[in-house]
Amino acid sequence: MTEFGLISKISSAFPDVPEGFEGIGDDCAILPQRDGMQTLVSTDMLVEGTHFLLEEIGARDLGWKSAAVNISDIAAMGGRPRATFLSLALPPSISESWAEEFIAGYRDISLRYACPLLGGDTTRSLERLCINVAVLGEAPSGSARKRSDARAGDLVCVSGPLGDSAAGLDVILSKCSRGEIERELVERHYRPVPRVETGIMLAGWSEVHAMMDISDGIGSDLRHILKASGLSARIDCAALPLSGSLLTYCSRRGLDPLKFALSGGEDYELLFTAAPSARERIGGEGLHIIGELLPGDSGQILWKGGSMPDYKGFTHF
Amino acid sequence: MTEFGLISKISSAFPDVPEGFEGIGDDCAILPQRDGMQTLVSTDMLVEGTHFLLEEIGARDLGWKSAAVNISDIAAMGGRPRATFLSLALPPSISESWAEEFIAGYRDISLRYACPLLGGDTTRSLERLCINVAVLGEAPSGSARKRSDARAGDLVCVSGPLGDSAAGLDVILSKCSRGEIERELVERHYRPVPRVETGIMLAGWSEVHAMMDISDGIGSDLRHILKASGLSARIDCAALPLSGSLLTYCSRRGLDPLKFALSGGEDYELLFTAAPSARERIGGEGLHIIGELLPGDSGQILWKGGSMPDYKGFTHF
Repeated sequence: MTEFGLISKISSAFPDVPEGFEGIGDDCAILPQRDGMQTLVSTDMLVEGTHFLLEEIGARDLGWKSAAVNISDIAAMGGRPRATFLSLALPPSISESWAEEFIAGYRDISLRYACPLLGGDTTRSLERLCINVAVLGEAPSGSARKRSDARAGDLVCVSGPLGDSAAGLDVILSKCSRGEIERELVERHYRPVPRVETGIMLAGWSEVHAMMDISDGIGSDLRHILKASGLSARIDCAALPLSGSLLTYCSRRGLDPLKFALSGGEDYELLFTAAPSARERIGGEGLHIIGELLPGDSGQILWKGGSMPDYKGFTHF
Repeated sequence: MTEFGLISKISSAFPDVPEGFEGIGDDCAILPQRDGMQTLVSTDMLVEGTHFLLEEIGARDLGWKSAAVNISDIAAMGGRPRATFLSLALPPSISESWAEEFIAGYRDISLRYACPLLGGDTTRSLERLCINVAVLGEAPSGSARKRSDARAGDLVCVSGPLGDSAAGLDVILSKCSRGEIERELVERHYRPVPRVETGIMLAGWSEVHAMMDISDGIGSDLRHILKASGLSARIDCAALPLSGSLLTYCSRRGLDPLKFALSGGEDYELLFTAAPSARERIGGEGLHIIGELLPGDSGQILWKGGSMPDYKGFTHF
């Protein structure tokens, strides 16, 4: 059974979503409030051995990242995060000082986004560390951007460079020596920065239609929008924003930066689609147009100037 | 490090809770909405080997219970559950049919409480099943009852019989043969029924001060109220409501029913305190007065007509 197979089973067991609610199928669920605001909710589980290696990631970075990937889901809907809830299942190997560092990292990002931890659960695990974060956010009613809102002819855009996080993972796994550039890439992997203000700005633009964050890789994530909206896409690989650090790292080690940019996950930049009339506005904000949406509900992506590697993005399952 | 030691560390790292919010320290966190309603949030993690044995509990019961313990936290604040969010880390040993049964049980309780599953996360675990549920509820602003609201002289009350769930666990662990009574006790352990309507009713009574649900055992849970409110208590063991099934089971097997009632957890009945003027109202609704709160912030409980066993309730850590 795949991750998406299980989600589909769960989804079909809960077909009756109340009026005004949005359930499974987007970055966040939506619950209406009575006063023109919506509550956004998302939750992510991080499991040792699947999402991180305890011997590689520092406790403080893991604390940051656990909250970051959730706050990013609120950003992806154009919302503002309000509070998080942390569940921890700790194996006996976790020391008190490790737990303190983890909490310090979690606190770092909570302060940065003015998004307090308001509760949670702590329990014992026999072998592996398991972390679950639930995040609540809010947005004015109707402003949250969904994956199903894309339209044929839309520009496909991203908020920042792609592939840095995957290159950071490559640095970690290859155990190469770390200069300034390698450390920066590792930081992009361990300390992703959710694009909350950009998300809120974009949710205020009427030209912006669909939006999500890039957690599994642009190929995998864009397909979610295409499937939800019944469209296909053409992506111009030459237009993908690549950081200087990524280009330097790849050049030094004889690697293809496009591989990281196309199929690497966990950049937590925003992926959004917008009417062509927004072209200048997008450029003016330093955002990047990387392709366009095509009619035809095949969900296929035509990669212009590059080919999608076999590696098709993360499936945490 | 104990569970409560870690919670205290986390709590002291997040001292600044925004105006109108309530954070760590109660059954649920509280987030104000703009229109006189409050959002209640709680989250619980259930870990294989710590909270349940996969070879003992059926998938459908586990699905029910995972949602039930969270919905009960909303009931404990006098709120109405609105939606849940389910995270699952599944080890390879979990079959597709097991997952389907789990979802069916989760659906059973979701339908019963009109509380849809709106999202979550699914991922792979290397060895152990880990389940996290987050639940959102709501209550009119100011109506949610907190653990710190108890007053000296209050009656201590519970919504229903105590000890059935612990006796059910005893049936399971002792592997005794199961007649109708044993099956009923096991059902009380595996399929707890959150007291949502009772909680909402009690939150509407001005005489009701503090409220929580009984998850760790009356001794352990009452101490949370005493500590939060700076009080102590006298409990009349003869007044503890005991079910016929518990009495019959204990009589047959030569066990002390008070042991289950006092220190057994997971009954998910409501524990609340109320002004003495509510005495008749409480009896009229079939609720049970079991003692009273005393001045003096020692947090001690005087057990009249029984003694608290050494076993002091669950600490999941």
